[in-house]
Amino acid sequence: MLSAFPLTPLRNDQVDEPAFLRIIQRLATSGVDSITVLGSTGCAAYLSPDERDRVATLAVQQASEVPVWVGVSDLRTSRVLQHVESAERAGAAGILLAPMSYQPLTENDVFELFRTISARTSLPITVYDNPGTTHFTFTQELYGRIASLPGIVSIKIPPAPGDRATTRKRIDGLRAILPEHVGIGISGDAAAATALLAGCDTWYSVIAGTLPLAALSITEPAARSDAEATVAASERLEPLWALFARYGGSLRVVAAIAEQLGLAAKDSLPLPIQGLDADARSHVASVLRELNIHDESR
Amino acid sequence: MLSAFPLTPLRNDQVDEPAFLRIIQRLATSGVDSITVLGSTGCAAYLSPDERDRVATLAVQQASEVPVWVGVSDLRTSRVLQHVESAERAGAAGILLAPMSYQPLTENDVFELFRTISARTSLPITVYDNPGTTHFTFTQELYGRIASLPGIVSIKIPPAPGDRATTRKRIDGLRAILPEHVGIGISGDAAAATALLAGCDTWYSVIAGTLPLAALSITEPAARSDAEATVAASERLEPLWALFARYGGSLRVVAAIAEQLGLAAKDSLPLPIQGLDADARSHVASVLRELNIHDESR
Repeated sequence: MLSAFPLTPLRNDQVDEPAFLRIIQRLATSGVDSITVLGSTGCAAYLSPDERDRVATLAVQQASEVPVWVGVSDLRTSRVLQHVESAERAGAAGILLAPMSYQPLTENDVFELFRTISARTSLPITVYDNPGTTHFTFTQELYGRIASLPGIVSIKIPPAPGDRATTRKRIDGLRAILPEHVGIGISGDAAAATALLAGCDTWYSVIAGTLPLAALSITEPAARSDAEATVAASERLEPLWALFARYGGSLRVVAAIAEQLGLAAKDSLPLPIQGLDADARSHVASVLRELNIHDESR
Repeated sequence: MLSAFPLTPLRNDQVDEPAFLRIIQRLATSGVDSITVLGSTGCAAYLSPDERDRVATLAVQQASEVPVWVGVSDLRTSRVLQHVESAERAGAAGILLAPMSYQPLTENDVFELFRTISARTSLPITVYDNPGTTHFTFTQELYGRIASLPGIVSIKIPPAPGDRATTRKRIDGLRAILPEHVGIGISGDAAAATALLAGCDTWYSVIAGTLPLAALSITEPAARSDAEATVAASERLEPLWALFARYGGSLRVVAAIAEQLGLAAKDSLPLPIQGLDADARSHVASVLRELNIHDESR
């Protein structure tokens, strides 16, 4: 399964609604299994409750038949609940929740956060483990406790170094402590091929939010267990993964790609996050040319 | 100089205004040199722009002659500007700005954030370096670039291990790259005595926000360069510093102290941050008894 994480492009510090609608439209017709708006790539952390409410509503309307999941993470539990209500009103298929932090959180804080949300919504919940932005590290034991709460359907795990065997061991270990109905999804696009072949059921994909066909080129062979083709497809995209590694993560790179392809206006990220500089943009453009990505015809 | 960082106590997920006013009143008559509201201890990261606007206004009104500095940090530059306007309207003496992050920030992002704010306000600005919550690490070079911007008056540095000589070397090194009018203040209460004796001009103090007299017992001898009495006063408070170390930082401990002393209602922190558990609270209470802190008579 492939869930695409689109950007929420800004223009003059406002959500660029026409650009966002075009991005959702493009995803809805691409063949991805679901769209997750307002994740880290969707810059939810930077948007106001009103902006997030509007984005959730627009996404569900525009995506039509394709299920839309909505990120509800926030620093304060009561604001998470507010976002959950927005997601419910919008008609979201489910919600995605990360333990965002400013002050370091304890295991109990995080468990109680998930318990509170789980008790207040009937929407399915994906647990979003993203230590690079939340600065919270889940233990296996906490995964298990949270996964036993009503409504938890999936855990989005961060990538970890290792080959397919190592990754399979990690996934199998995790499966052993999770209830059977709880899925395991991978984030970290460069790790997706390995993780899907090692038993992850979903790829929560940054690149799919902007280049869905590129992501599908990996998930399609993975779905028929064609390991060779899956690995080859990911290796073909290695220049993209190299851009993510070189420019401090995926966000600035996918924003530059979206801007380069005309999916978003320049400076589409929320300040203080600046876009890539001119040299980096040239680098991104040359990678897109090298991969023959312009209109995403395959 | 001593700047006191008060809590912003909540009650049923709303700012507990009567409690906040009592805390400010207590600080205003305590002898501290200034009050900084809406810092990390003031839980600014968790409050809405409206709540922060209200807190800034109440604090300035209640503090009367004592200068009130207002924390304006936020994840998005435009929201920082909104908080700056609140601070100006409230009559703040100055603002405190940390580079809060969700996505990791670059040096240029942070410099441009400070440049933007510096260009838009005539209030004096304290640069708040708090890597434990912002996950951003300043270089010396960036300190220097930012300190040269108009309006920057002080840098609040985090504690670093080391005795007085080591700390003096660090402060002297920093002085050498900062414009003469820019002060250096220490945060990290356990490190304050050493840092003040090593040449820091200000203590940005968590404990002063809740127990101002305890903090003044350190700054008063420091102001007359009485090193022995300064060190002795800090050593006397060692059980408090030990609580901070043991319970994952100062915030939950000062909230428990405020609740114990009746300055705030129970569960005064914004969820998901839970207060200390019963055992830890007993521990806090026993330290307060041991230090003979109840009504803060000296």
